[in-house]
Amino acid sequence: MVMTAEERQYDEMMDRIFHPRHIAVVGVSSQGVGFGSGIVRALINIGFEGSIHCVNFRGGEFLGMKLYRSVTEIHHTIDFAVITTPAETVPAVLEECLQKGIAGVEVLSAGFSELGTPEGVALEEEVRRIARRGVRVVGPNCFGIYCPRSGLTLLPGPDLSRKPGSVAFLSQSGGMAIDLGHLGKWMGVGFSKVVSFGNGADLRETELLDYLARDRETATIAMYTEGVEDGPSFLAALRRATAVKPVILYKGGLSDAGSRAVTSHTASMSGSRAIWESLVRQANAVQVTSLPELVQTCLAFSMIPHREYHGISVVGGGGALGITACDAAERYGLAIPPLDEAISRSILDVLPKPGSSAKNPVDAANPHVPPPILKKALMEAARDPAIDLQILIQLLYHYAYAAGFLGMSVEEATPFEELAEAVGDVVRETGKPVLLVIPNNKQGLDALDVEETRRKTRQAFLEQGVPVFDEMEDALRAVRHVSSYSARKKEVDRE
Amino acid sequence: MVMTAEERQYDEMMDRIFHPRHIAVVGVSSQGVGFGSGIVRALINIGFEGSIHCVNFRGGEFLGMKLYRSVTEIHHTIDFAVITTPAETVPAVLEECLQKGIAGVEVLSAGFSELGTPEGVALEEEVRRIARRGVRVVGPNCFGIYCPRSGLTLLPGPDLSRKPGSVAFLSQSGGMAIDLGHLGKWMGVGFSKVVSFGNGADLRETELLDYLARDRETATIAMYTEGVEDGPSFLAALRRATAVKPVILYKGGLSDAGSRAVTSHTASMSGSRAIWESLVRQANAVQVTSLPELVQTCLAFSMIPHREYHGISVVGGGGALGITACDAAERYGLAIPPLDEAISRSILDVLPKPGSSAKNPVDAANPHVPPPILKKALMEAARDPAIDLQILIQLLYHYAYAAGFLGMSVEEATPFEELAEAVGDVVRETGKPVLLVIPNNKQGLDALDVEETRRKTRQAFLEQGVPVFDEMEDALRAVRHVSSYSARKKEVDRE
Repeated sequence: MVMTAEERQYDEMMDRIFHPRHIAVVGVSSQGVGFGSGIVRALINIGFEGSIHCVNFRGGEFLGMKLYRSVTEIHHTIDFAVITTPAETVPAVLEECLQKGIAGVEVLSAGFSELGTPEGVALEEEVRRIARRGVRVVGPNCFGIYCPRSGLTLLPGPDLSRKPGSVAFLSQSGGMAIDLGHLGKWMGVGFSKVVSFGNGADLRETELLDYLARDRETATIAMYTEGVEDGPSFLAALRRATAVKPVILYKGGLSDAGSRAVTSHTASMSGSRAIWESLVRQANAVQVTSLPELVQTCLAFSMIPHREYHGISVVGGGGALGITACDAAERYGLAIPPLDEAISRSILDVLPKPGSSAKNPVDAANPHVPPPILKKALMEAARDPAIDLQILIQLLYHYAYAAGFLGMSVEEATPFEELAEAVGDVVRETGKPVLLVIPNNKQGLDALDVEETRRKTRQAFLEQGVPVFDEMEDALRAVRHVSSYSARKKEVDRE
Repeated sequence: MVMTAEERQYDEMMDRIFHPRHIAVVGVSSQGVGFGSGIVRALINIGFEGSIHCVNFRGGEFLGMKLYRSVTEIHHTIDFAVITTPAETVPAVLEECLQKGIAGVEVLSAGFSELGTPEGVALEEEVRRIARRGVRVVGPNCFGIYCPRSGLTLLPGPDLSRKPGSVAFLSQSGGMAIDLGHLGKWMGVGFSKVVSFGNGADLRETELLDYLARDRETATIAMYTEGVEDGPSFLAALRRATAVKPVILYKGGLSDAGSRAVTSHTASMSGSRAIWESLVRQANAVQVTSLPELVQTCLAFSMIPHREYHGISVVGGGGALGITACDAAERYGLAIPPLDEAISRSILDVLPKPGSSAKNPVDAANPHVPPPILKKALMEAARDPAIDLQILIQLLYHYAYAAGFLGMSVEEATPFEELAEAVGDVVRETGKPVLLVIPNNKQGLDALDVEETRRKTRQAFLEQGVPVFDEMEDALRAVRHVSSYSARKKEVDRE
């Protein structure tokens, strides 16, 4: 893709915003209360590597740092500023940021158009006017920017991951941004850039979508929106973006009550469900309807090849688990076809008997089947040309019995490292992805050790490049999203 | 309900099966391997209070207990027997049980009709013929009976709860029975009787449904089936049961692949989706499509009044959470109506500002709102006649920040006991149920303390009679099931 000079200049400006070397936080209390000192602490704790300059119009000190009375007093160049002062002071602060040559700011303060008052709306209009003169604004009424590479973080966010990934997230809701940040950390979704843009007075969905479609650090774009500003422009940007990478959309406020709630949340008009859904379908965006579905879909897109998936093999212990998988697969338009007879026989050869079955689903009859046997079953099933992807389901908590019986800890009794390596080998040798599903039916206070082992299992599989889901249905739905996007993209590419 | 003499006699027989004073386990290895010794250990560990007699045709000893060569050698009366010997030996063992006057047995052994071989089918037919002569059979190819009151437990099941409850569960799948047993333990669903009946050679869905409809210990019946034996009889029993208590049905194998998998699991014919679904609707059974949905629905039926619910208030921190709730409510035919203006104003008075909203959803703007304020909001919202039920959503993991800041443990920083008491008071004072929703977006290895506090929170709320769900959508769907059943039952009662 050849870039125009204008695009290059624009991207350099955005780079100062996402990877600032010097930032200012305006509205830091010397007593350490409020959003300003909160975000300074968060930046220090997450290990932001640039310099941090604190501003309070009264002056003073915070954590041994001087409090400047204005950004204009700072000798340094400032790339990015965080504004946390009361709403009515924001326009004046913004004027100073403009004067200082700051590329962009995030306004965490609330009290603008979301109040629904003429004063709030007017104040936001003023912010927009100043922004148009050359200082880009994220917010107001937002949690800001999270960028693992640079160490910019959301409010509160000191414990978000510093490991960069390839998923970008645009969110009108700050809560949704911080929640996805946390979910991604343990589920294995890494982020390139997360932007909570709140009321979106200046920078918002359409422009950011175009930027992220071009961004080399971003391979998948996820988005939570409560209402877009300009439908036709957004649709055009969405088409441009989905032509090069998947865009996963979660739209809040499609119901009547939800639409009413949107107004007091981010002051958006949420629009009708029918219009929205057809818009999304036309543009080949992936539509999800909950935060868990959003993160599961991000996980699948960032860990398995973007292909069409039809035939799936399900391997695990417990007949009903396999039946549940079949029923759920049908709901998502996927097939769990019978395995080739010779392959089925060679799998049945290694499974414990009686009680096992190797037709697909492969029911290993008990939950403690050793890793080499499961590996053999997966390797064999992958030989079947009707199989595009495999799902391994393991009820890990059953190892708690084995542990008791053998006088071991749950972690010692659970061969999760061996199993993760075996499954990693299967994926590398067959080129067909495997997903792990680990429901946890044992979540009592007496089973925290089971949970700990389960979390270690998740990590071990993620390190092998194997995505992990809590429930079969979640895994199948995520596969379906990847498959549908890939099929439609192939059509579009041909057109 | 007046009982016939025949029913009384039948129930006495069933009582010997579910609450046996003396049981025999047939097929106990003196080396302590296999299902027989497993179930003996499980019965001892769970604290079964009757006497246990072990049988092995070779004689010997296990855990210091004599191994009888046959049940007929035992001097005691035996109420119930567990058979774990190889399939081909089961008919002979069963004959001895009949001779001994045992009321019922469970056959854990596999190797019958589920194999799909003529030998397997013939063996099962033989079991059925012996059963008809006067010894009732649960199984074969099952995990048996779990009865918290008597201490009968499933295989493995030594750690299932001994606290009796009012939910009965009939399951063709043993795995599903043990999974639900575990899920119920921490989610707060207590069981009267759980029966995994596997291939169902003798006792199965229709007869057991009639029995449980009459059973005073059972207020809610749940069921996992892969295929009923006799559609019309089952439908009639289902109607009789739903006329007196809710019946929650989870049907496996409704898809083509699932139907195929059913055959090798419990040898049932699973039937078509359309026929099944109309049958279920006609009979006012509650249909669910996954195990998580099954247990969540049991929880709601056992903890909230069986009424129609229309208007719901949602209280919690985070605007997007409320919007998500509205959208999900619409999917389940529930309303989140705007609160009465005076009530809304009095709630807004106590909420932190800016950023909060009290229209419904009530957005408390931050996740650390003190319990007395949340109590006030719930008490006020309950005054609105348009509100039938309330949902409180809390992102408890945000207390981890407060804990860090205050130098406390997460448990110390989270006011879960105070909040549980406050919410319990609201339910008692208003007569309108409250559900708690506690998503956990922070499930890393570094946040096991968050999980521990979350589990304690769940317990504290359950002790106050407040059901707890992981996700908003789960709570709303469960409410919908209770409401729909209650509405339809009212109609049927009128007819």
